[in-house]
Amino acid sequence: MNNALQEAFDQSKYKLTGHGRRNIQVLKDAFEDVDGQLDSDLYGEGKVIEDFQDKMAAFLGKERAVFFPSGTMAQQIALRIWCDEKGLPKVAYHPLSHLEIHEEDGLKELHNIKTTLIADETRVIELEDVVSMEDSVACLLLELPQREIGGQLPSYETLEGISKYCRNNGIRLHLDGARLLEVLPYYEKTASEVCELFDSVYLSFYKGIGGIAGAILAGGEEFVTKSKVWKRRYGGDLISLYPYIVSADHYFNQKSNKMPLYYENAKELADFYNSCHSVSTLPKIPVSNMFHVHFPQPKEEIETVLIEVMGKTGVGLINHLRATGESSCYFEVSVGDRYGEIPIEAVKHAFIQLDECMRNKFPS
Amino acid sequence: MNNALQEAFDQSKYKLTGHGRRNIQVLKDAFEDVDGQLDSDLYGEGKVIEDFQDKMAAFLGKERAVFFPSGTMAQQIALRIWCDEKGLPKVAYHPLSHLEIHEEDGLKELHNIKTTLIADETRVIELEDVVSMEDSVACLLLELPQREIGGQLPSYETLEGISKYCRNNGIRLHLDGARLLEVLPYYEKTASEVCELFDSVYLSFYKGIGGIAGAILAGGEEFVTKSKVWKRRYGGDLISLYPYIVSADHYFNQKSNKMPLYYENAKELADFYNSCHSVSTLPKIPVSNMFHVHFPQPKEEIETVLIEVMGKTGVGLINHLRATGESSCYFEVSVGDRYGEIPIEAVKHAFIQLDECMRNKFPS
Repeated sequence: MNNALQEAFDQSKYKLTGHGRRNIQVLKDAFEDVDGQLDSDLYGEGKVIEDFQDKMAAFLGKERAVFFPSGTMAQQIALRIWCDEKGLPKVAYHPLSHLEIHEEDGLKELHNIKTTLIADETRVIELEDVVSMEDSVACLLLELPQREIGGQLPSYETLEGISKYCRNNGIRLHLDGARLLEVLPYYEKTASEVCELFDSVYLSFYKGIGGIAGAILAGGEEFVTKSKVWKRRYGGDLISLYPYIVSADHYFNQKSNKMPLYYENAKELADFYNSCHSVSTLPKIPVSNMFHVHFPQPKEEIETVLIEVMGKTGVGLINHLRATGESSCYFEVSVGDRYGEIPIEAVKHAFIQLDECMRNKFPS
Repeated sequence: MNNALQEAFDQSKYKLTGHGRRNIQVLKDAFEDVDGQLDSDLYGEGKVIEDFQDKMAAFLGKERAVFFPSGTMAQQIALRIWCDEKGLPKVAYHPLSHLEIHEEDGLKELHNIKTTLIADETRVIELEDVVSMEDSVACLLLELPQREIGGQLPSYETLEGISKYCRNNGIRLHLDGARLLEVLPYYEKTASEVCELFDSVYLSFYKGIGGIAGAILAGGEEFVTKSKVWKRRYGGDLISLYPYIVSADHYFNQKSNKMPLYYENAKELADFYNSCHSVSTLPKIPVSNMFHVHFPQPKEEIETVLIEVMGKTGVGLINHLRATGESSCYFEVSVGDRYGEIPIEAVKHAFIQLDECMRNKFPS
């Protein structure tokens, strides 16, 4: 059934989510204008990696930055460094943090670092959660936006308050900024203004930026020097990371200025969903390019609806759907380049159809 | 001074070592004929990664294989799995193993695995070293060829003896086969015949094969399944590994059948070095495409000689040189495609010059 949803999405003329298909053309486009005579990086050294690291350090307002194959690796290492600094193998983060649910417990298995989960699965971490923590921790990780709850954000004042509290209480503050660029339009801040509140920052290149893979970890001189030793230990200090670096740079240049557009489009798209019978988004008004779409009906029934609407309208709504229980389900929307390429009339038509179909199938 | 050596090498018309420059053209060539519409792998799944893993499993004669970003990651994980299986966090390997000298103690820092170093820095591990080990270990790692001593090999009978002993004594045997293909012509065996002696095998794609980066870890079904969990924990389960996979496949197809040629060329080239005054290779007769060239003179003086010979002849001998003390030095030679592209007269001329220059500078 999930395959049928993917197929219906693939066959749609227009697609509401993402930048485009994750295929090899993404690499070909990134390398098309790059001189083949440019030398590879070599175990973390060389122009191609050093230039990009310098560019990202400046962009994030940090002393130094280091390119990693993945955010999983970069973030575990950041937390380990802060734990070692304090001699306290304990960190705090949200119960739906990437480290808690997507990394097979790497942090615990590889570093024996204990975790304190703060806030709960329905909301973001607030200052009060941090102040009232009973455990002593070396580091607090904040994920902006909190992806697994639709990409919600604390207020900027909350961020400032948490940052101040952590600095006053000897707690390092790390930013899971996988989607950092995507939240800047809502905060109306630059990347370096946000990063200034944090001791270390991770940024991903294959979410909103649309690269192939790879991540940047940024912070002070000493922190970054240590992170390179750990990168070697992890087997992340590859002889050549340029396939990810060149593409990260290419798509960063292409997409980093488009985040305000994606944000505006996400608000418009969420509005379309919320106009449909029995459909709601989380958050109701997006604060980045992403949100979740919830249905108080079983996954199987909603799949039928989505496939029908996509077939009728040629507008690809989504390619995946997750049950949240026996009688409800949701999907995640990430707005990228594709949304802007669709005639608005086609989008409107699709949502009129979705609304009708929901009313017919689930009359209240 | 090392820069001067690199410059002299770069400016030489011909180059005796390697396949070519490690530049972005290596990627461009690999992707030139690949359809841009081919989908990316996705967190270890999809045609591009699964097909290559199946191909490598078959080539190595193992049940399954998994693609890793690096051998460092793959091998630490292999050893961890075998240690967990036996409930004994201890492994044995050569004192100049990659894990011991190039990985910032990742195995110890990330897994708390203890190591027993067997044999010594001048020779390969023999059956007697294994039989006389006092410590109980979960796994023995053999590196074929032993790179840091010029790429030496035990006899095939020794391999068979070690394999039999390990199986009879409950010790897992892991192959550091970074350069496995390069030793097959000497052993006159297929890859799967050699791998049959081992429980798990790692193969690299950027040594003799000439790819960009990446590695295969192969073994039984259960072993490989566990390795994928650890790959996720390490942050090695990238959303897209295809830049390395496509290039690994491309260069594997291009170079895997050329290993006998590289081996023959290496023997010829070593012979040229050994014909020069005060120059010797280790091993004297290579057993793969690699060997070391030793000089009983200080590094600075040999650099002068090498730069002079390269300048006079246009033949690039080498781009690096390492001191082994105050009064001796060596460099590593890896024979690849470039050697075969040089007119033999130019090679001969270069070694006549090297011999003359050594005689003049260091009359005995």
